[in-house]
Amino acid sequence: MEAAVRPSDLDPAIAARLKRDSAGLVAAIVREYQSGDVLMMAWMDDEALHRTLTTGRATYWSRSRQEYWVKGATSGHHQYVKSVALDCDGDTVLVSVEQVGAACHTGSRTCFFDELPVKGETR
Amino acid sequence: MEAAVRPSDLDPAIAARLKRDSAGLVAAIVREYQSGDVLMMAWMDDEALHRTLTTGRATYWSRSRQEYWVKGATSGHHQYVKSVALDCDGDTVLVSVEQVGAACHTGSRTCFFDELPVKGETR
Repeated sequence: MEAAVRPSDLDPAIAARLKRDSAGLVAAIVREYQSGDVLMMAWMDDEALHRTLTTGRATYWSRSRQEYWVKGATSGHHQYVKSVALDCDGDTVLVSVEQVGAACHTGSRTCFFDELPVKGETR
Repeated sequence: MEAAVRPSDLDPAIAARLKRDSAGLVAAIVREYQSGDVLMMAWMDDEALHRTLTTGRATYWSRSRQEYWVKGATSGHHQYVKSVALDCDGDTVLVSVEQVGAACHTGSRTCFFDELPVKGETR
């Protein structure tokens, strides 16, 4: 039960491989290409993916604001896209970027700074 | 508009920090702790997160099968949990694992083997 896909300029050959959620989005995992560190998670519709692939600037769909969002446009914390890979089932992309400044809106370099306690046997 | 949360043994202090989607799930980005490579993306409800944190074995909620899924239970491709971090807005966890064998059901080491063409200026 897939949502209607918003019109976009995304290459139809790529669009055909996407498995979008009920809001028409795929997940975008963002990592720093130099270190491999995972920086943040965001969402893309077809047009956001198209813009990311063709402008070299990471562009997302803001679920809260319901609008396109070029990372760094207001913060200056630009993300220059180095590579994008789609996963095996087409519902997630992995975006490797050169990150300027902090990726997280809190000012932290990454959004994943809240370590949870792992109590089990970890080999 | 959050779904009813399934009963779980997750520490209430952690549960209170989660921002679940309409299906009661948070996204789980899985990376290999040695290389930092992103391996796959999956989903967790509170109980899956609890089991991941307390057993040291990565455990997900299968959206297609609607059941818990201990990675490797059928494939032998176990994931031994090294660390888990929650992101700034509580809707995604980053799980660092020691991966036995292939993380992807296709037999590939990671699920992100389908490179998309980036045509823009990448600095």
